Amino acid sequence: MTVDDYLSGIRQRDWEELESGTLRVALVGLGWWTREQAVPAIRESKFCETTVAVSSSHEKAETVAHDSSTVSAALTYDEFVNGDATDEYDAAYVCTPNASHLQYVSAAADHGKAVLCEKPMEATLDRAEELVAAAEDVPLMVAYRMQTDPQVRRMRELVRDGAIGDPVAVHGHMEQQMLDVVSGNPDQWRLDPDLAGYGSTVMDLGIYPLNTARFVLDADPMSVTAQMHSEHEAFDDVPDEHATFSLRFDDGTYAACTVSQNAHLSGGFRVIGTEGELRLDPAFLGATPQTLTLRLADGREMEIDDGRRDLFGDEMTEEFDYFADRVVRGVEPTPDGEHALVDMRTLAAIYEAAETERRVSVE
Amino acid sequence: MTVDDYLSGIRQRDWEELESGTLRVALVGLGWWTREQAVPAIRESKFCETTVAVSSSHEKAETVAHDSSTVSAALTYDEFVNGDATDEYDAAYVCTPNASHLQYVSAAADHGKAVLCEKPMEATLDRAEELVAAAEDVPLMVAYRMQTDPQVRRMRELVRDGAIGDPVAVHGHMEQQMLDVVSGNPDQWRLDPDLAGYGSTVMDLGIYPLNTARFVLDADPMSVTAQMHSEHEAFDDVPDEHATFSLRFDDGTYAACTVSQNAHLSGGFRVIGTEGELRLDPAFLGATPQTLTLRLADGREMEIDDGRRDLFGDEMTEEFDYFADRVVRGVEPTPDGEHALVDMRTLAAIYEAAETERRVSVE
Repeated sequence: MTVDDYLSGIRQRDWEELESGTLRVALVGLGWWTREQAVPAIRESKFCETTVAVSSSHEKAETVAHDSSTVSAALTYDEFVNGDATDEYDAAYVCTPNASHLQYVSAAADHGKAVLCEKPMEATLDRAEELVAAAEDVPLMVAYRMQTDPQVRRMRELVRDGAIGDPVAVHGHMEQQMLDVVSGNPDQWRLDPDLAGYGSTVMDLGIYPLNTARFVLDADPMSVTAQMHSEHEAFDDVPDEHATFSLRFDDGTYAACTVSQNAHLSGGFRVIGTEGELRLDPAFLGATPQTLTLRLADGREMEIDDGRRDLFGDEMTEEFDYFADRVVRGVEPTPDGEHALVDMRTLAAIYEAAETERRVSVE
Repeated sequence: MTVDDYLSGIRQRDWEELESGTLRVALVGLGWWTREQAVPAIRESKFCETTVAVSSSHEKAETVAHDSSTVSAALTYDEFVNGDATDEYDAAYVCTPNASHLQYVSAAADHGKAVLCEKPMEATLDRAEELVAAAEDVPLMVAYRMQTDPQVRRMRELVRDGAIGDPVAVHGHMEQQMLDVVSGNPDQWRLDPDLAGYGSTVMDLGIYPLNTARFVLDADPMSVTAQMHSEHEAFDDVPDEHATFSLRFDDGTYAACTVSQNAHLSGGFRVIGTEGELRLDPAFLGATPQTLTLRLADGREMEIDDGRRDLFGDEMTEEFDYFADRVVRGVEPTPDGEHALVDMRTLAAIYEAAETERRVSVE
């Protein structure tokens, strides 16, 4: 593949095989992410349609139904679990607090529906393993939107094709002002360990550089170190308002990462190899156009900018259409539950490393 | 200070007070760094002159003397230690393998000369403490060239002035193909623990992001984690062909760092705060023009490019003139030995953290 191919093919859907078809989606959990990102993304999508809205009350579910002519049923969580309106949807997008993914994924699987489950897959490794077992008879994909980001996919191809030699080091970071984002809305579950899991920031943001490094390197973490702390009183119940962690991958690459829920909105991802480097900056933010830079040992530098995007909608549209492409064609979607369990093991190891002040192996 | 002040003042020597004068420098150690970086830097400097060359043999010392009309004495190390030609120089620049800094700094101090000692200050913390004690009666500066880099100084001012709010996270990295640089020359001491110290790569390269973070944040490390390993047989005797380490600073900031002696030449330094971020990319390389980028929470972005530079000479010229400015005026130069001891404690802690697989406090 030449650089011109990369440039002209940056928006090409290398994964698309479905010619026509529609996947009818039940949105389970109607927090700001679902309302502001998933609903518009599905509206823009080629193969998906929102047909069912599920929330804590009929009133809340109906606000989404009211905004979308394609929605034919507005359910409570209990009604969804009980199997109401199962004729109205083919798949469930589960975007509730981490610790309730198991319940709603299990229900969707019981109804024989495909599942797109938000990341992290669950609040703890044990619960994530239960979730994977519960969904073993249905297609289960975990919603790593970075894996359908065209620039991240090009980055993976460039690394795989040896464009930067052998990868040696990764830098990844993601920061946001979470208190601004969540104030006045129900997303404070991210500060409740019972709902969020091991912690807040590494679970919510750390998973971006972690999973993107796995995807781009095609490698898995072997061991981790971590340091974390909370200062602001809002983070009193979680250990990680701010955190840093390092990953050693099974190919020898190190990843050095920082995350914060109380900093300037920022994200970046860089891979340094023996013969060059790749930088995506900003990364993970969706709202900001990303630039992918390839810098080679001979001094040449190329920038690959795909000119997007409408908030997160673009990346999420790719993700929903990819999911539909797989499910409608009867092909198992990836990243699947087994892939996501490696992240859950790594997240557990990161929190254990911070707590015990030790390097922890990812078993 | 306005942004225009920063732009117009980028090359201004905020430290320069000396009006005229010359510091006569003895170059102790004539490896490639001295010959290719220090000698030209001093030639370009305003206040320094190379007058003495010191090496393992007269022949080698005379090669430098031959190239420079200002050199009046070419000495062996033994002659330097014995006090030959002490009337010919005012200060010694010590750029020998780490484990011989103590010997030559002590000799220079015995002769009553000011000292500019390359970093890391010595091979081990104990020896570095001996060095500081030995030089207590003479001006001692450690050659952190980043601290006289105009863009790094502007970065420090911007952080101090609150341009990015409170710092939260730092990313720093430095990589090079050391085997290419050293093949066929005597710098393989970097792979000999008796000469290099605790290891190779963190000592040689890790000190760049470590010390730059200290300088820019005006904070010191409290605890470290690290992972490191060697693969290539040339690195059999040292633990760190590749490494990653994290630092927790006493202001709460985390720094996530990677270094490698066997990767594409690369360096970068980024500080993320609560209200913006600063990025120097590339950083530490000297040879490549650097761009300093300030990105603010409201989306504004400014680039500050100083348009330099001639390999490392420019940065090294700043360093030598700064040293001369202080010594000729009779002002104690900084970064001094006490400052450098904090780096030595941190380097020791990083290697201990990697070896013991534990977080280590910097005492």
